[in-house]
Amino acid sequence: MKHSMFRNYLYKKEIYEEWTMGGEKSAKRAANRLLRKQRMEEEAEAARILQEKKDQKYMRAALKQAQKAASIGEVPIGCVIVYRDQIIGRGYNRRNTDKSTLSHAEITAIRKASKKLQDWRLEECTLYVTLEPCQMCAGAIVQARVERVVMGCMNLKAGCGGSVLNILEMQEFNHQVKVTRGVLEEECSKILSDFFKQLRLHNKVEKYMNN
Amino acid sequence: MKHSMFRNYLYKKEIYEEWTMGGEKSAKRAANRLLRKQRMEEEAEAARILQEKKDQKYMRAALKQAQKAASIGEVPIGCVIVYRDQIIGRGYNRRNTDKSTLSHAEITAIRKASKKLQDWRLEECTLYVTLEPCQMCAGAIVQARVERVVMGCMNLKAGCGGSVLNILEMQEFNHQVKVTRGVLEEECSKILSDFFKQLRLHNKVEKYMNN
Repeated sequence: MKHSMFRNYLYKKEIYEEWTMGGEKSAKRAANRLLRKQRMEEEAEAARILQEKKDQKYMRAALKQAQKAASIGEVPIGCVIVYRDQIIGRGYNRRNTDKSTLSHAEITAIRKASKKLQDWRLEECTLYVTLEPCQMCAGAIVQARVERVVMGCMNLKAGCGGSVLNILEMQEFNHQVKVTRGVLEEECSKILSDFFKQLRLHNKVEKYMNN
Repeated sequence: MKHSMFRNYLYKKEIYEEWTMGGEKSAKRAANRLLRKQRMEEEAEAARILQEKKDQKYMRAALKQAQKAASIGEVPIGCVIVYRDQIIGRGYNRRNTDKSTLSHAEITAIRKASKKLQDWRLEECTLYVTLEPCQMCAGAIVQARVERVVMGCMNLKAGCGGSVLNILEMQEFNHQVKVTRGVLEEECSKILSDFFKQLRLHNKVEKYMNN
């Protein structure tokens, strides 16, 4: 609100100046120009808000996947891939359950999305993941030419979407990914810390029972 | 040969000096010490030659996998994973055939090896690959905690085993891989250049036929 009031004040001032300098006609032209500018700005703002809402909606879907991981005792990380406003691939961490390092949430989602599109290129796709991807998953995202990645919380010790490395945006590779960070950051972080808190408690109880 | 002659000369000189300085007993002690040293050096050299032969043998198995890729029109890259002198995972590039970015040679071999060992950790394993791995595969190798990687030829434009990045040996991650480069380098490079030469010829003929 404050921003638009300030903009209106600037616009009025510009039209007034045009009037004093070049007369009524000139002021009218300036008013039209500024009106068009204002409309474009408002449209961009509306699109931004819409995208923000969409991002939150799909991150919530990724969080749902993370909960699936937690429910089978795996570190809760979830991922969905969206193509033309439709989820075409879901995945959650199953590394210990599947006994495979390839069962990270992102890899599973990429496999499913490729199967759905019948293409190894996921060119118009956006990937939503609750935690910053590791070196393998970030690499797979670039290799699959995913257009955009939206992350929940960061992984300062091992993440490769900006923390330890930034594989996603490296100019040296033949593809760069657009990156948005911090969508539903608190929820994404909380599900992890809750999991580890419970794990520590579980281990303590087990130790106590064994003594 | 020349090396061992030079070594013998140095040893004799050292024993002679010990004799003149400390008498016969001292010279005997020195001779025994140097004999032990020589035996250890010879053993290390024999082990090195044995490892070199083994590396070539398994790289040949990886080249066989690469040929499989070529035979279905895919870029010829092959990989095998060895655990206690046994191949427990094989893979070759099938990206276009499978329509999946996850069908790189290394990823397939890692999946199969994990299934065989029933563990996501490939801790005592050596991975042989004909071409330097990409960012995804190098990441998967670190994530799977593979002990050692042996490469054929390098991929200067996109490789992440030392060319663009060195994900395999980065101190920032929780695991570092031992790396050997350039085993059967010429063969590994030739199978690729032959493939691309034939591909260009094929495309030219096709163009000629269509005109």
